[in-house]
Amino acid sequence: MKFVTYRRNNQEHIGLIDEQNTSVLELRTAEEICLGSCIIPDRMLDCIAMGESFLSKVRQLKETAFSHSRKNEFLLSMEEVELLAPIPRPAKNIFCVGKNYAAHAIEMGSKEDIPDQIIVFTKATTTVIGPGKEVDPHLDVTGQLDYEGELAVVIGKKGKNIRPEEALDHVFGYTIINDVTARDLQERHRQYFLGKSLDTTCPMGPWIVHASVIENPNKLHIETRINGEIRQSSYTENFIFPVEKIISILSSGMTLEPGDIIATGTPAGVGKGMNPPQFLKPGDTMEITVEKIGKLINRIGE
Amino acid sequence: MKFVTYRRNNQEHIGLIDEQNTSVLELRTAEEICLGSCIIPDRMLDCIAMGESFLSKVRQLKETAFSHSRKNEFLLSMEEVELLAPIPRPAKNIFCVGKNYAAHAIEMGSKEDIPDQIIVFTKATTTVIGPGKEVDPHLDVTGQLDYEGELAVVIGKKGKNIRPEEALDHVFGYTIINDVTARDLQERHRQYFLGKSLDTTCPMGPWIVHASVIENPNKLHIETRINGEIRQSSYTENFIFPVEKIISILSSGMTLEPGDIIATGTPAGVGKGMNPPQFLKPGDTMEITVEKIGKLINRIGE
Repeated sequence: MKFVTYRRNNQEHIGLIDEQNTSVLELRTAEEICLGSCIIPDRMLDCIAMGESFLSKVRQLKETAFSHSRKNEFLLSMEEVELLAPIPRPAKNIFCVGKNYAAHAIEMGSKEDIPDQIIVFTKATTTVIGPGKEVDPHLDVTGQLDYEGELAVVIGKKGKNIRPEEALDHVFGYTIINDVTARDLQERHRQYFLGKSLDTTCPMGPWIVHASVIENPNKLHIETRINGEIRQSSYTENFIFPVEKIISILSSGMTLEPGDIIATGTPAGVGKGMNPPQFLKPGDTMEITVEKIGKLINRIGE
Repeated sequence: MKFVTYRRNNQEHIGLIDEQNTSVLELRTAEEICLGSCIIPDRMLDCIAMGESFLSKVRQLKETAFSHSRKNEFLLSMEEVELLAPIPRPAKNIFCVGKNYAAHAIEMGSKEDIPDQIIVFTKATTTVIGPGKEVDPHLDVTGQLDYEGELAVVIGKKGKNIRPEEALDHVFGYTIINDVTARDLQERHRQYFLGKSLDTTCPMGPWIVHASVIENPNKLHIETRINGEIRQSSYTENFIFPVEKIISILSSGMTLEPGDIIATGTPAGVGKGMNPPQFLKPGDTMEITVEKIGKLINRIGE
């Protein structure tokens, strides 16, 4: 099950994408017509917070709606909708794990940079943009804009002090994040936050794949291409801290809530790690593919 | 003008405190009775976002309501209300400036630690608690809980790339924050976020003093007492980065929004800086006083 947030006729909607990624089921409208009820909210955060009652409605619709006699009223082609980030406005900053692949830690410095304790920082909520949207090059504040392809976890169930064994029960699903970073700001200000929080530097999407589809989030191929050239190619098996551990450490004394988003870190191959460094330029296209999830494409604006 | 968020009969309300800090004007109810209108929202974030139309209603009420014949319907004594944090649930993480007083930077390390560039990190939205509420000692995750008394700025007007000269026009008001910190976590995880984001570690309040009352936020006395003993005593004149500069740098490429909260950093005198270090213990009382704003008192729970 893949969930999208999209805009149509100036309204935000929640949709379910079919297996072939060609059509979008408008969930609220479909629920009304096919099931005669209307409990599905029109914001992803509210859908996630509903938990099982949302999912059970979706499962009913999955069985009936795609072949319903009135399907033309709620089944749209991908061309008819404007995809937004699946969670266009998170309720708190995006949690980000730093240096979670050893090879990336090394390219950013040396072997000394491989963390033995998890590194966590955040990106402001104002950074989020959807698939296909342009990233502002911010030429007036940075000369070192860089990409970071990442698997992102979306929390589904509130919890504190979550044990690793139960951590995946707290996951609603997975999406892709491009943790676009101003390397000069990241370095200049010691703490990463400012270099990570320029407007439009958190492309997210194209959808959230429900957790039931991903048996093991620590066994996925991840690849980033810049203007078609492969720059990052790795497997989440290389995580220093796997998803279960991330959730467990983050939730030690800090409550995680439905809709919280955790970017799990980026593999080796960022622009800063190249020799000489290759930073992003206006017009560059960034494509991040995560196995079983999809592809997130964004361009640097002119 | 001092604005509070409080709970009464299980409902959240916005109130205006009188000059003597003895009574609370329930703004929505007063508006209805005295002015016959009802546009004042019941959440502080929405009030702030309304801007001038909110303030002009409040000014009208300030003139008429305290002497209105039906004032007993909306004028409450402080004892009747349970104060909450003025913004109980911020819309994004709290921005925090690190090492903004040279003497504090030195006590945390050495002269080398005095920043020449601003340091910014965040606290999760789930950390916020109100005045008088207990801070969880988190004995299972930290043995080094520490206080940090700080002046906090509440943004009133959206802006990006705000120039220092116009920065104070973007301020709605000021409050007090205790940036309670788990020093061991702060150090262990390199980035400060985890050590700053345990549940209940952001006491805030007791109210927001409107910007019109504070001519110069960089000229206020600030003091922290632990169990009555003065630990921090300084002036915001000692800021390395004054409020105008903080707002200007933060908003370089990052949009600031109404209701955003910025903790401006803590003076020398934290527990970690003492010899030997004195960390917080269950039962300790923390009192932070900022001139012209008020006093924020919280206790470490048992």
